[in-house]
Amino acid sequence: MPARAEHTANMLKVALGKRSYDIHIGAGLMPTIAGLESAWLAAEKIAVITDENVAELHLKSLLHALGRADVHVIVLPAGEASKSFAVLETVLEDLLEAGFSRSDTLIAFGGGVIGDLTGLVAALLKRGCAFVQIPTTLLAQVDSSVGGKTAINTKAGKNMVGSFYQPASVIIDTDILSTLDNRQMKAGYAEILKYGLIDKPDFFNWLETHGERVIDGEATALRHAITTSCAAKADIVARDERESGERALLNLGHTFAHALEAAGGYDGRILHGEAVSAGLLMAYEFSQCLGLCPGQDVKRVRKHIELMAMPTQKTLLANLKTPAQDLLSFMSRDKKNTGSKITMILARGIGKSFLAPDIDKDRLYQYLQDKTGR
Amino acid sequence: MPARAEHTANMLKVALGKRSYDIHIGAGLMPTIAGLESAWLAAEKIAVITDENVAELHLKSLLHALGRADVHVIVLPAGEASKSFAVLETVLEDLLEAGFSRSDTLIAFGGGVIGDLTGLVAALLKRGCAFVQIPTTLLAQVDSSVGGKTAINTKAGKNMVGSFYQPASVIIDTDILSTLDNRQMKAGYAEILKYGLIDKPDFFNWLETHGERVIDGEATALRHAITTSCAAKADIVARDERESGERALLNLGHTFAHALEAAGGYDGRILHGEAVSAGLLMAYEFSQCLGLCPGQDVKRVRKHIELMAMPTQKTLLANLKTPAQDLLSFMSRDKKNTGSKITMILARGIGKSFLAPDIDKDRLYQYLQDKTGR
Repeated sequence: MPARAEHTANMLKVALGKRSYDIHIGAGLMPTIAGLESAWLAAEKIAVITDENVAELHLKSLLHALGRADVHVIVLPAGEASKSFAVLETVLEDLLEAGFSRSDTLIAFGGGVIGDLTGLVAALLKRGCAFVQIPTTLLAQVDSSVGGKTAINTKAGKNMVGSFYQPASVIIDTDILSTLDNRQMKAGYAEILKYGLIDKPDFFNWLETHGERVIDGEATALRHAITTSCAAKADIVARDERESGERALLNLGHTFAHALEAAGGYDGRILHGEAVSAGLLMAYEFSQCLGLCPGQDVKRVRKHIELMAMPTQKTLLANLKTPAQDLLSFMSRDKKNTGSKITMILARGIGKSFLAPDIDKDRLYQYLQDKTGR
Repeated sequence: MPARAEHTANMLKVALGKRSYDIHIGAGLMPTIAGLESAWLAAEKIAVITDENVAELHLKSLLHALGRADVHVIVLPAGEASKSFAVLETVLEDLLEAGFSRSDTLIAFGGGVIGDLTGLVAALLKRGCAFVQIPTTLLAQVDSSVGGKTAINTKAGKNMVGSFYQPASVIIDTDILSTLDNRQMKAGYAEILKYGLIDKPDFFNWLETHGERVIDGEATALRHAITTSCAAKADIVARDERESGERALLNLGHTFAHALEAAGGYDGRILHGEAVSAGLLMAYEFSQCLGLCPGQDVKRVRKHIELMAMPTQKTLLANLKTPAQDLLSFMSRDKKNTGSKITMILARGIGKSFLAPDIDKDRLYQYLQDKTGR
C-alpha cells in the first residue's frame, strides 16, 4: 500500500523568475489536487486533455478530485500519432469553440505525447494560457513534464515543431504508475539512468544497487529516483531554459535515440525510453571509439542496462535493419545541430558528459556501420 | 526623389533585455541591408518568405541586396488566407526539408499577413530561430512588424492561434511604399492615427495638419509618422511584452475592428486598417454613449477620418448588413476578454485611452443595434 500524500510528498521548484513553478512528487497526490494547487483551479474554464488509455484508467478519479462539474474533456487516440499538425489544429479549434481564453487552464493528463501536445496547445491558444502537467508514465514524470519543451512531430522528424513554454505546475503521483507494465517502467527508467550518467556518478551507484526496486514500482525507491531526476532537470532548466548551452546535456543518448525512432517510423514498435536506453549505451560506445571514455565505464553502463533487461542497440537495430547511412542522415537533422555540423553529447566517463559541437561524420558513420553491419 | 538612407535613417530600440532589437526607418534602406544587419546575415541558411505581389515588385532587389546566391525563397498567395494552419504546416515542412536549423534566419518580406505567419514559423521551427521583419505595407511598418505578436487565423476568429516571439531586427524602407495604392496607405494610416488617440494628443494635432502628406507618401512626413508610431509601440512593448496590462491599449478600436473583419468573413473586401479606421471611431462613439468621452472629441475624430476619406462604420456596415447580435458574439471572442466578460479599450478624450475590463453587454448591444439598424 502506498503511503498517503501528506506524509510522503516532496516539492521542488523550477526557478525561472515570473515563470517559476512547483513540482509535487508523492504517492496519492492526485486525489488531493484541489488542495495542492488552488490558483489555476480558480480559472473560469478548465480542460483536461488526455488519451484513451489514461481516460479509461484514471479520468474518473481526476474529475472527482477536481470537484467541478464543468470540466471540458478532450480524449485523443493513444500514441505518437497524436503529436501532429492535424491533432494540434483540432484541439485548438475545439477549445476556441468552447470559448477558452488566456486566463483559463489546460491539464495535460497523460504521458509525454499528451504533455508535449498540450503544452504546445497552451503556448498557442490566444498566444498563451496556463497548463498543468499530471504525467502518468514514469518517463513523463522524470523527464518530459518538467522544463517546458513542447512539440509535435513532422515529416522531417520528431519534435521538429514546438516551443519553450513552461507549465504552471507539475503534479507527479507515483500511485498512477501502478497501472503501467514492466516495459513502460523500463522505458522511463532509461531517462532516470540518464541523469546519473550526465553528472551524478553517486546516483548511478545508487541505481546499480536499487534500480530493480525502481522498475518494480517500490514507492520509496521510486520517490527517491523521481525526485533526484526532477531536481537534476529543474537545476539545468533554471540555468539554461532555452538550451543555449548546458541544457543540451539532457540530450545525452538522444541523438542516437531520435535516429532509431525515426528509423522505426514512429509506428509504436519502439518506445522513446527504449530508444534512449539504446542511445545512452551508443553515446558511451561512440565516446570510447573516439578515445574519450575509458572502456571500463562503458562496460559498467552496458552491464547495468543488460541487468535491468533494457533494450540495447543490438536488439533494436536487429529488428530495424536500417542502413548506417540512413541513421546518419536522421542524426544530421537533430535540432541541436548548428548549420551542417552534428552536435552530440558525449562522455569522458560515468557522470562526465559534455557537449561535442562538431562531430567527425566519418567516424560516426564508421561506428554506425560497425553496429548495423550495413 | 527619396533621399538616400545614410542621410535620413532613424533608429529605435525595442528594449527587452536579451531579446532587444533595433528598428531602422528611412528611405532607401533595403538596398543597404547587408551593411545594416550583419549578424543574422552570417547565418548558414537564409529564407525569404513573401507573397506573390511583393515578390513581383521587390524580390529581385531584396535578393540583390542580400548578395547571396543560396537564399531559400518561399512565395505564398497574397491575402489573409495564408494565415492558416495549412500554410503554417507547409512552410514549416518546407524549411525543415531544406535543413533549416535554430541558428538560421528567416526574413518576413511583406505586409502583416507575411509578418504574422513568418513570425509564428520562426517561433516554432525547432523551438525557435531568428527572423527579420522587412514590412512592405504602411500598416505593417507602423504596427505589426514591431512587438513580436505572431499569429494565424482559425474558424473562431482572427489571430486566435499564435505566440509572442520577437524579431531579431525590423527594417522599414519607406521607398517600398511607393508601390502601394491610396487605399492601402489609408489603411496603414489608421494605425498611425491610433497612436495619437491612445496617449499622444500632440501627435494627433500634427496629423490633423499633416495627415494628407503622410497618406500621399511624402518622405519627410512619412518618416516622422512612422518613427513616432514605432517609438510609441516600442515603449509600450518594452514595458508589457506579453500584454498583461498596458499593451492592451494598442488594441484601441480593434475589438470593433476584429468583429467587422469576422463579419466580412476575411474575404478581402475589408482591409484590416479599414476596419481599424471604423473601429477607432466606434470606440470613441461608444465611449461617448457611456458618458465617458466629451462629444467634441468624438466629433474631431470623426471629422479627421472623414477628411482623410477613410472608411467609417457607416460605409463598412452598410455593405455587411451584419446583425448587432452577430457583432456582439464576435466581440465576445476577443483575446483580451477574461472569462465571459468583454474587455475593451475606451477613451475619456483624445489621447486618453484606458482599459475597460467589464463592458456592459446590454449597452454595447444597444450601441451596435443603433449603428446596424438590425
